Amino acid sequence: MDPDTLSKAFVDHYYSTFDTNRSGLANLYQESSMLTFEGQKIQGSQNIVNKLTSLPFQQCKHSITTVDCQPSGPAGGMLVFVSGTLQLAGEQHALKFSQMFHLMPTPQGSFYVYNDIFRLNYA
Amino acid sequence: MDPDTLSKAFVDHYYSTFDTNRSGLANLYQESSMLTFEGQKIQGSQNIVNKLTSLPFQQCKHSITTVDCQPSGPAGGMLVFVSGTLQLAGEQHALKFSQMFHLMPTPQGSFYVYNDIFRLNYA
Repeated sequence: MDPDTLSKAFVDHYYSTFDTNRSGLANLYQESSMLTFEGQKIQGSQNIVNKLTSLPFQQCKHSITTVDCQPSGPAGGMLVFVSGTLQLAGEQHALKFSQMFHLMPTPQGSFYVYNDIFRLNYA
Repeated sequence: MDPDTLSKAFVDHYYSTFDTNRSGLANLYQESSMLTFEGQKIQGSQNIVNKLTSLPFQQCKHSITTVDCQPSGPAGGMLVFVSGTLQLAGEQHALKFSQMFHLMPTPQGSFYVYNDIFRLNYA
């Protein structure tokens, strides 16, 4: 699978899991994984999922505007850069966001999220 | 220098160079460097600077809203994620943008930009 197709497949999987079964995101992170969420630094799969599942909204829907990807170096990683909108249930306006993921290969031939940085883009 | 201080220093240097001496950015890239600019993929220091210096505006001013950073792995790289606005001369409204850099160490103890992804965040 070429990098653009792979990154789009990852992005589709990530946000559909976020929107339907947020705790299922635990499988995409490992103990070394880092999340910076609106400036807050969190490390490790369980801590990251605890953060994501404790966000102060239940239902949400991500819509993706752009996905860009680049190989990150000889270790076989891939950088994925996303822009889009986040619609929260009961809110009139969607929130714009940007997010980057650094995916690293697993011995099983899959990828996990090593780096994750999320920011809302306020108007 | 701690990673947060280093990333802020890099960001200040990058955008002040962009706004005052765009061709000087060549020193921050190498032949292996990649830029994805609004979806267009460009590789190599000279090609990247040719792209940046041929953008259809002369004077501009970047203002930074947020800078986040994370170490990218055992090779000593650093991911820097920026949001901000770009004011073009003669335009009424500033443009919002997001950009990520993957900085890699040089043998001389400095860093160069290995990955660079830029996107305007249209309202």
